[in-house]
Amino acid sequence: MTDTTDTIVYRLSANCDLEEVEEGKMYLGRVQGFANFGVFVQLNDRVKGLVHKSNIKADHSERDPIIVEVLQIRKNGNIDLEEVMPQVYRTESVTKAMPTIRLSDLGRKIGRTVMIEAEVAQIKQTSGPTIFTLVDESATENAAAFIEAGVRAYPEVQLGDIVGVVGEVMQRNNQLQIEVSSLSVLEPEDADRVRARIDQALDERAEPEDMPFLVESDVFERLRPAMRNVAKQIRKAVFTAQPIVLRHHADADGICAAVAVETAVTALIRESGGDFDAEYFLFKRSPSKAPFYEIEDITRDLDFALKDNIRYGQKMPMILLMDNGSTEEDVPAMKVTEIYGFPVVVVDHHHPDEIVDQYLIGHVNPYHVGGDFGITAGMLGTEIARMINPAVEEQIKHLPAIAAVGDRSEAPERARYLELAAPAYSEQHCKDIALALDYEQFWLRFNDGREIVKDIVNLSGNAERHMRFVNLLTAEANSAIEEQMEAVMPHVVSRVLPNGANLFMLDVEMYAHRFTFPPPGKTSGEVHDRLVREHPGEPVVTLGFGPDFAVLRSKGVMMNIPRMVRELRQEIVGGGVNGGGHLVVGSIKFVEGMRDAVLDGLIEKIGQAPI
Amino acid sequence: MTDTTDTIVYRLSANCDLEEVEEGKMYLGRVQGFANFGVFVQLNDRVKGLVHKSNIKADHSERDPIIVEVLQIRKNGNIDLEEVMPQVYRTESVTKAMPTIRLSDLGRKIGRTVMIEAEVAQIKQTSGPTIFTLVDESATENAAAFIEAGVRAYPEVQLGDIVGVVGEVMQRNNQLQIEVSSLSVLEPEDADRVRARIDQALDERAEPEDMPFLVESDVFERLRPAMRNVAKQIRKAVFTAQPIVLRHHADADGICAAVAVETAVTALIRESGGDFDAEYFLFKRSPSKAPFYEIEDITRDLDFALKDNIRYGQKMPMILLMDNGSTEEDVPAMKVTEIYGFPVVVVDHHHPDEIVDQYLIGHVNPYHVGGDFGITAGMLGTEIARMINPAVEEQIKHLPAIAAVGDRSEAPERARYLELAAPAYSEQHCKDIALALDYEQFWLRFNDGREIVKDIVNLSGNAERHMRFVNLLTAEANSAIEEQMEAVMPHVVSRVLPNGANLFMLDVEMYAHRFTFPPPGKTSGEVHDRLVREHPGEPVVTLGFGPDFAVLRSKGVMMNIPRMVRELRQEIVGGGVNGGGHLVVGSIKFVEGMRDAVLDGLIEKIGQAPI
Amino acid sequence: MTDTTDTIVYRLSANCDLEEVEEGKMYLGRVQGFANFGVFVQLNDRVKGLVHKSNIKADHSERDPIIVEVLQIRKNGNIDLEEVMPQVYRTESVTKAMPTIRLSDLGRKIGRTVMIEAEVAQIKQTSGPTIFTLVDESATENAAAFIEAGVRAYPEVQLGDIVGVVGEVMQRNNQLQIEVSSLSVLEPEDADRVRARIDQALDERAEPEDMPFLVESDVFERLRPAMRNVAKQIRKAVFTAQPIVLRHHADADGICAAVAVETAVTALIRESGGDFDAEYFLFKRSPSKAPFYEIEDITRDLDFALKDNIRYGQKMPMILLMDNGSTEEDVPAMKVTEIYGFPVVVVDHHHPDEIVDQYLIGHVNPYHVGGDFGITAGMLGTEIARMINPAVEEQIKHLPAIAAVGDRSEAPERARYLELAAPAYSEQHCKDIALALDYEQFWLRFNDGREIVKDIVNLSGNAERHMRFVNLLTAEANSAIEEQMEAVMPHVVSRVLPNGANLFMLDVEMYAHRFTFPPPGKTSGEVHDRLVREHPGEPVVTLGFGPDFAVLRSKGVMMNIPRMVRELRQEIVGGGVNGGGHLVVGSIKFVEGMRDAVLDGLIEKIGQAPI
Repeated sequence: MTDTTDTIVYRLSANCDLEEVEEGKMYLGRVQGFANFGVFVQLNDRVKGLVHKSNIKADHSERDPIIVEVLQIRKNGNIDLEEVMPQVYRTESVTKAMPTIRLSDLGRKIGRTVMIEAEVAQIKQTSGPTIFTLVDESATENAAAFIEAGVRAYPEVQLGDIVGVVGEVMQRNNQLQIEVSSLSVLEPEDADRVRARIDQALDERAEPEDMPFLVESDVFERLRPAMRNVAKQIRKAVFTAQPIVLRHHADADGICAAVAVETAVTALIRESGGDFDAEYFLFKRSPSKAPFYEIEDITRDLDFALKDNIRYGQKMPMILLMDNGSTEEDVPAMKVTEIYGFPVVVVDHHHPDEIVDQYLIGHVNPYHVGGDFGITAGMLGTEIARMINPAVEEQIKHLPAIAAVGDRSEAPERARYLELAAPAYSEQHCKDIALALDYEQFWLRFNDGREIVKDIVNLSGNAERHMRFVNLLTAEANSAIEEQMEAVMPHVVSRVLPNGANLFMLDVEMYAHRFTFPPPGKTSGEVHDRLVREHPGEPVVTLGFGPDFAVLRSKGVMMNIPRMVRELRQEIVGGGVNGGGHLVVGSIKFVEGMRDAVLDGLIEKIGQAPI
Repeated sequence: MTDTTDTIVYRLSANCDLEEVEEGKMYLGRVQGFANFGVFVQLNDRVKGLVHKSNIKADHSERDPIIVEVLQIRKNGNIDLEEVMPQVYRTESVTKAMPTIRLSDLGRKIGRTVMIEAEVAQIKQTSGPTIFTLVDESATENAAAFIEAGVRAYPEVQLGDIVGVVGEVMQRNNQLQIEVSSLSVLEPEDADRVRARIDQALDERAEPEDMPFLVESDVFERLRPAMRNVAKQIRKAVFTAQPIVLRHHADADGICAAVAVETAVTALIRESGGDFDAEYFLFKRSPSKAPFYEIEDITRDLDFALKDNIRYGQKMPMILLMDNGSTEEDVPAMKVTEIYGFPVVVVDHHHPDEIVDQYLIGHVNPYHVGGDFGITAGMLGTEIARMINPAVEEQIKHLPAIAAVGDRSEAPERARYLELAAPAYSEQHCKDIALALDYEQFWLRFNDGREIVKDIVNLSGNAERHMRFVNLLTAEANSAIEEQMEAVMPHVVSRVLPNGANLFMLDVEMYAHRFTFPPPGKTSGEVHDRLVREHPGEPVVTLGFGPDFAVLRSKGVMMNIPRMVRELRQEIVGGGVNGGGHLVVGSIKFVEGMRDAVLDGLIEKIGQAPI
Repeated sequence: MTDTTDTIVYRLSANCDLEEVEEGKMYLGRVQGFANFGVFVQLNDRVKGLVHKSNIKADHSERDPIIVEVLQIRKNGNIDLEEVMPQVYRTESVTKAMPTIRLSDLGRKIGRTVMIEAEVAQIKQTSGPTIFTLVDESATENAAAFIEAGVRAYPEVQLGDIVGVVGEVMQRNNQLQIEVSSLSVLEPEDADRVRARIDQALDERAEPEDMPFLVESDVFERLRPAMRNVAKQIRKAVFTAQPIVLRHHADADGICAAVAVETAVTALIRESGGDFDAEYFLFKRSPSKAPFYEIEDITRDLDFALKDNIRYGQKMPMILLMDNGSTEEDVPAMKVTEIYGFPVVVVDHHHPDEIVDQYLIGHVNPYHVGGDFGITAGMLGTEIARMINPAVEEQIKHLPAIAAVGDRSEAPERARYLELAAPAYSEQHCKDIALALDYEQFWLRFNDGREIVKDIVNLSGNAERHMRFVNLLTAEANSAIEEQMEAVMPHVVSRVLPNGANLFMLDVEMYAHRFTFPPPGKTSGEVHDRLVREHPGEPVVTLGFGPDFAVLRSKGVMMNIPRMVRELRQEIVGGGVNGGGHLVVGSIKFVEGMRDAVLDGLIEKIGQAPI
């Protein structure tokens, strides 16, 4: 569709003043209000005129669009208008010479009035002004619009709109703010242009720096594209003021992975401008109870996300899953994220199920490139954190070593990260930190313990306190383990299976201290470790069970736990069998009343496994 | 007591200025402060004068009342006073011509100074001004009094006082506020007059509009007065800025009832002026764990209410119970509400015990007028919500259909509401929504999930998201039910009782997945439904039990569960038997060690019930 | 090291103005910024000059120190400087005649500019100004520094710094605030001098008044020094704006102790100035689940303390333990407080283990001076509360009587406190209040219930409401106990032990209502009381047990429960035995599978105890 008419109706952009208005020209305005003698019309937020009642052609309501011709601009600045109704016309924008500037340039414009084109990333009503968080390709900054204490300014502006803002730049110390004098949603074509410009520039800005990994690793080299992608997605979320919810496995490896990214992201948020406390409401770290993203987790995350969106005008969050998120068990929760349009990114080292990938915009997993769980989440997280924000490298580069010993990695990268951490962090100290993390997280009960955890991994800049605290936690944890072992070891029952494996069984609810550290899974693990040491070179399987669950650990026995679970589920009618795991560790759930049948079936299968 | 004296001492009202002061007249003032040369006296918040030390007759402290005569009003506005001590006198108020206006008229007085007489409904100290929420017969508005950042202005004014306020009206967009220039508690006689005026007008304003019900229903017609009363009480709470705590049964019917009222009330709060976020702190919806108002619930509600009252100056709340509240089990909690003066309103369809009514200011229950539980709480709630706020009808009119199928109503109203909801909501879709509500509430763990629930019942204006989310939740719920049935059905034990009833028994703790959806009660219900389908036309009783409880469902057997419980309690010494229910569904609690005796006794009684 | 040079470089103190600058003298300044024509130098926050580029001797960065000589002070106030580099010099401070005033004198300086020297006790960024809470020897007050909305003013100032502040005093009503015009960290020598002055004066100010106890008591007289010390530590925390976390046993005695101190402390915080809501964030009361300070408790307290410190600039808290804290079981948590430098104070009447004292800065315990548990925590807490703040005596003086009957004290002080409380509080009414506290705390689930509890102990000034509420709670509690007794009493099994003691055994999980009031421990206690009444004069031991615990109560049997536990732990391999108690009451934990062995062993030992 081409406009061939010569009749032009001008639209006065938000940054224009009286100077840009010309007598004799037609403008698209909006009805502002009514008086006895006529109708007031806004040409933009700053320029208003009057259509005398004798010059009105139609009935209007407030905020109706209206086309007017400028009859006269008086010396006192009053504008006399006439309503006109051209049949055919094209519209054209009038923009002031004042150039729009990038948000990153605000610092050089302090005290001056500027024009900004940006996306609205949050709209927060305070008891004073309304705060619009603006994002463009270069930075995030706040614009404060004050109408009246506690009253929403510019109610027509919505989250995600592309707006033109004119205002004065205020600054002292290291924070900037625009005091809005006008703010309006751009017309669709302008908005499209600005959005395209912002998107392209953001895409470039979000691209991580090229850098070598902290240690040599073939697996890492093959994972590089996936890791860069995840780092880029996270950087983009930060640059567009999108909240990030980081869910992670609540063990030492998961915590290290998550804290590395937390360190990188919160520093990046602080640098990127915006609210003085943005690092608290734009980033949340939540340990998960289960080793996967449960329905209960997504329900809680969705509940908060929708409430923050409706009440505080925040964007929907990105979900970042670390040390979980790779398996079929995560799918129900991911289906929810899909419906709500939450982008999801996974950094995991559990054996991945292909089905999850359809729900993800990024997935780092060593199994994708021939690696395995020996490349721990803490290693991956730390390398990604460097890509997100290289400035934090020195602070976090010891975290992979902690993760490696915590997760008992046997990959070659383990030694390299330990070397990198040494001599400041010996292998024993890394083990102590990992145990301290597990112990403290148990008592934190799935709270993030943000500042406590920083002390444990020595990120709060108080090395002496770190050392004393880790020593204390390690001593307490070891004494609790010792006490648990004293209670349970006398109750371990052993038998030799047909395949020659030593099976050790323990009822961890009947014979262990409950609701304290170590919990049943860790208790079984400790028992297993001791039994393996007592039977060097022999095949050992440890089966810790409670009324409706069993935990399996093995050494030297080739069990396929997922297949065993599938078979038991088939064979034992009404057993309610469920569960999973890897070759050497797994867990099974069943209904309490069928425990004996399930355990018998399970033991039979273990006895058939190759040694 | 009659005043016969001609000596008059005037009281200068809050809205008076220097113009209203006359030389030679006597006024009742207050000592404001001391100087070398005399004592400053306030005639009201705006008019002050000086008593020279030579004219002081007595010792005074700050804020003491004092009677003064005006010697002279100087050109610069200074007032010279003399202390006087008339033996006999009467007082009379001087009020300025300035008329008091209603809060609803503020919108027409923007930029002007007005006088308001109103009740103080909240006093909130902010880090800036003190915000007094004012209520009169017409509206709720905020008045901001600023003394100093964070300092309580007018500390003598208390919650519930009737005050006179003079201030300037500020407004832009759709919110109003009074900037206080003077604020004072009215003298008792004035206060009584104003309170009477406000009360009467509020009473009229709170009266719901007359309107037909959404569907034809004899029961509804007979319930109309009770429903109007409840709607009126709720409207009055909103108009007087009284917080409302809505407690409801955490199932699909209870949620529908509560969400209908939530929609009506929050919209009414927004319309009624006051704080920009009043809809959040003046309305709280809380699903209850038990099917009644537990001691634990009222303890929590009371804890918050008292803290909000002391710390944030809020009124004590109204309690609204939906889909619970009608039975004896609610009485202990209601006794607490009585002591604290919380008004309580019940909308329920469980068989009511008369004893509750002494604690209530409103009670809607179909049993009161010959109806029964087929008139679900969701139906009642939706009709009452329309009375509260007719504007929300279009949004909520499909909720009764969801409630009807969710609660398996067999009342004739069920079909009528389904017809009303169709074709947008088919019967199957209503069933799906009801199941989705049950499923999601299970994972919400008694959080309200305000925005999530709106999506499930399609109140957030995103029909596509609603549809996809309900489909997902329904699929997940059905698959969880299917898995539970696979585990439990092989363990159902059956026997034929002396009266010919088929009794099916299931241990729902030993043979079901625990701590997941469906929970024991719903598991028993699903089992029962399947067994009924497998035995068409036969009498069926399903008994799901755990270590210390049993859940009963029946079809075709005329059990009087409350009586059976009473008898068992008598007969089984040390059984600790408790519980209740209706004809077809009930639950029983007992001490674990007496389970066999209780179940045997129970089965014997079931075997004697008429078929 | 002595300065012998005559060359003096002056440092201009924060309160100095242009008047204090002299031409020809040298000053130590700081580089403020750069211009084409030279370098701007600050002599202090208020006095700036210019070094023309021709007078610069070296390269500088922003905020570098620089020594300058004043060439000329122009009429317009501009100062011409020259950079100088004296080889040998001594520095001297120039201070304005303006005297520094104490914070407690602010009230007499309203509207005037003052100089304050004080410690920074909190730095809170608001969405408006930055609030520095200042503490000196006399009071706590806030200073507001505004740079820009939401921007941290004076970022170089840290928590705990000694600062010089110049600003205007603002006040109306009863709150004061300094509007900062300059604020700077004092040089080390000045800071040391001020800190010494403040510390000494605070020490004197914190000293409690000398006063007699409410009742005569030898034990109290001997405890006086320890009580004074604890009161002083608490007063000092209040005066220095250090948060206090009060952890207490969740029974009637612990609550009375804690509420007495809460009343004293919150009133003292209100008097001491600072934020309008300081009493909420500087004082937290938390009932503990266990009868000691658990790892879970300290983890939670540490989590919040560190977050408040990092995010809201609060000091690390003092921990006050009441009715717990005296035993070995508290040590693991105390080790954490030691590492984080949280001072800990204990007021307890359980038999103390000496090991705790190394972690404490104050410990009141009657056993230290030959008293015993008959001197209840509520008695101790009330007397200490009076020392903290004598003004609250009238309000709290009945609390020891409630604590005494609640804890069944048989000390002579019991009768004296009851006499003091009478006739307003009869012994029966005190018992009712104690029962009401236990009952309501059960439903509060370890929330503090701040305002509810005040009503129960009649501290909220509404005596009628108090009376009705206590009557209701007592009736409900007694009816719940009655119902529990009906369930359990028929299941009590008795036997006569070799030593002639009557042993009564009850499985409180199998035969009692669970998850309701009364909980297992109280259920056992009630059973014991009834059995003692039924067997007057005979030795009675009641053993209530569950799957992995047992609760012991005895009358007339001399058991040493701690020793019995130690022996059982030795004798029963894999029993996991733990626990403790006094002579007449104790509890034991064990692993479920070894219950029979542990109970048999325990009963054997009870049978050998002397009667």
